[in-house]
Amino acid sequence: MRLLLISSSNVHGYGYLDQAESEIRRIVAGHRRVAFVPYAIRDRDAYTQKIRERLGAMDLGVVQVHGPNELDSADAVFVGGGNTFRLLNALYERNLIGEIRQRVRAGLPYIGSSAGTNIAAPTIKTTNDMPITQPPSFDSLALVPFQINPHYLDPDPTSTHMGETREDRVREFLEENDTPVVGLREGTMISVESGRTVLLGLRAARIFRRGFEPLEVEPGQAIDDYVG
Amino acid sequence: MRLLLISSSNVHGYGYLDQAESEIRRIVAGHRRVAFVPYAIRDRDAYTQKIRERLGAMDLGVVQVHGPNELDSADAVFVGGGNTFRLLNALYERNLIGEIRQRVRAGLPYIGSSAGTNIAAPTIKTTNDMPITQPPSFDSLALVPFQINPHYLDPDPTSTHMGETREDRVREFLEENDTPVVGLREGTMISVESGRTVLLGLRAARIFRRGFEPLEVEPGQAIDDYVG
Repeated sequence: MRLLLISSSNVHGYGYLDQAESEIRRIVAGHRRVAFVPYAIRDRDAYTQKIRERLGAMDLGVVQVHGPNELDSADAVFVGGGNTFRLLNALYERNLIGEIRQRVRAGLPYIGSSAGTNIAAPTIKTTNDMPITQPPSFDSLALVPFQINPHYLDPDPTSTHMGETREDRVREFLEENDTPVVGLREGTMISVESGRTVLLGLRAARIFRRGFEPLEVEPGQAIDDYVG
Repeated sequence: MRLLLISSSNVHGYGYLDQAESEIRRIVAGHRRVAFVPYAIRDRDAYTQKIRERLGAMDLGVVQVHGPNELDSADAVFVGGGNTFRLLNALYERNLIGEIRQRVRAGLPYIGSSAGTNIAAPTIKTTNDMPITQPPSFDSLALVPFQINPHYLDPDPTSTHMGETREDRVREFLEENDTPVVGLREGTMISVESGRTVLLGLRAARIFRRGFEPLEVEPGQAIDDYVG
């Protein structure tokens, strides 16, 4: 399997997807045709057009995924960000969960950003998104054996807001579930290649496991030992 | 129906539940026995004890709800905050959704805070919480005809974080649903009494409706015309 799981397409100080461009080039590896899954955003055509322009600047061609056909003719699949519940629900409605999982497991490179990264995990139970629509299940692609929390955000010591911090929320997840969680800060991504899972990007990631103190891992570091 | 829907038990600069104390006294109206629903927090007994001490200081007695019996002998029901998915799931497991709804519609005063306020709405689709467990449905008590977003948070103009703002998330909700949403800032609450829905507390609330610009309402103002 070859996966590139990006925390967020927008990173402060960078253009759209800029911080991930070299890794996207690497995983697509000279091929041209990218199948794009836009379901996390309401206006799918506008979203596809935005991605078509951005990837076009990298000499990649983009087709919008409507069903398995576009996956069959693609060299890679890209699942864009937006609302994770909307995305997962649409994939179930179109019977695409198994179709995507099977092709990616068979070698089709998978690129996800934000919501597209959430659904690469076993479930969407560590998304930050509002549950604006109810999918039939929280189970997702399970391309990796761990959960991911994209846009991971450290507590703001100056805040007077009393709602849960992101770390509080991940700890609540671990009260109910035993799967490790990678808190993936903006500007970072996870690469899975040749059976090796590596953190990439601009900053450290924070790994949460039940019964352990959270752990910081640096870009370039393999994380399989912590999340496998 | 008599409802008191509190944004959050913790408010910057106040002790636990202090900002809501006078309204809690008013809705309980001289009665003594409060049935407490602790399911949003993992350690239910510790949570009940915390509430017992806090409401005890107001001369109220607290019993933990295990089933309908404790509701039958109570003068009011209090549903505490924590994780909304965990709370709703537990209520379904114990068949308490209909039991609570029916008694509150028949006149039992209902006090909710945070997650307890979320479930007073038709669905939990405007919670901020992480979906750490999957309830059989997102449908909740429907004591009011509108959605509530507790801990409502204005965008921070100095932030470099690129994730969705709360307003972005509520707008995504309105792309998929047509129910008005009250963004209930910390330190505020909604009172429903004699068929009148009034904002109370320290700050304005923000009301979102599909096809309209968001609206600010001030404490003391009735909001039925906007959310009915």
